[in-house]
Amino acid sequence: VVTEMAIFTALPGKEDELGRAIGHGVEFIRQYPGCISVGIARSIEKPARFTVSIDWQSVDVHVNGFRNSPLFGQWIGSIMGLFDQEKLDTQHYQAYRA
Amino acid sequence: VVTEMAIFTALPGKEDELGRAIGHGVEFIRQYPGCISVGIARSIEKPARFTVSIDWQSVDVHVNGFRNSPLFGQWIGSIMGLFDQEKLDTQHYQAYRA
Repeated sequence: VVTEMAIFTALPGKEDELGRAIGHGVEFIRQYPGCISVGIARSIEKPARFTVSIDWQSVDVHVNGFRNSPLFGQWIGSIMGLFDQEKLDTQHYQAYRA
Repeated sequence: VVTEMAIFTALPGKEDELGRAIGHGVEFIRQYPGCISVGIARSIEKPARFTVSIDWQSVDVHVNGFRNSPLFGQWIGSIMGLFDQEKLDTQHYQAYRA
């Protein structure tokens, strides 16, 4: 299992609209078989910032599977035009044991 | 419950040392009564980057409680000198429901 953490920053004036769009859009992600779970959170200090945390079965399932599926287009289509693409940060994380 | 998400970026050459230091240092955080849970993750694409996700009972418990406690000094002392302070990003997040 890997966790994709995507950090979105709303364009000015689009904060609440982006939140609602993410809330609806993640339903497309949840439909993909390799998706284990999805969580959305909003920053208290910077309410324009939302995180979408997605547990995937593997990086491959996400990058080569989901991103090539029609569901990816539906997800991106839901939120396009509402966030600052230059500030988008997406990484895959693995739980770390020291 | 609020989730503090702190993103640390290791100084060059300090990547693995920072990971181990975080692993030991979070024990100080776990000892604070208002801390509910702590998780550590490492980016696959940028292995210099670690996230520390901490569930706190409230923002107040974290900011006015923990940060004024000796445990905070022990935590910071564990990792000081290993990460780029300018790249440190710390926010409090709340679960979002659309």
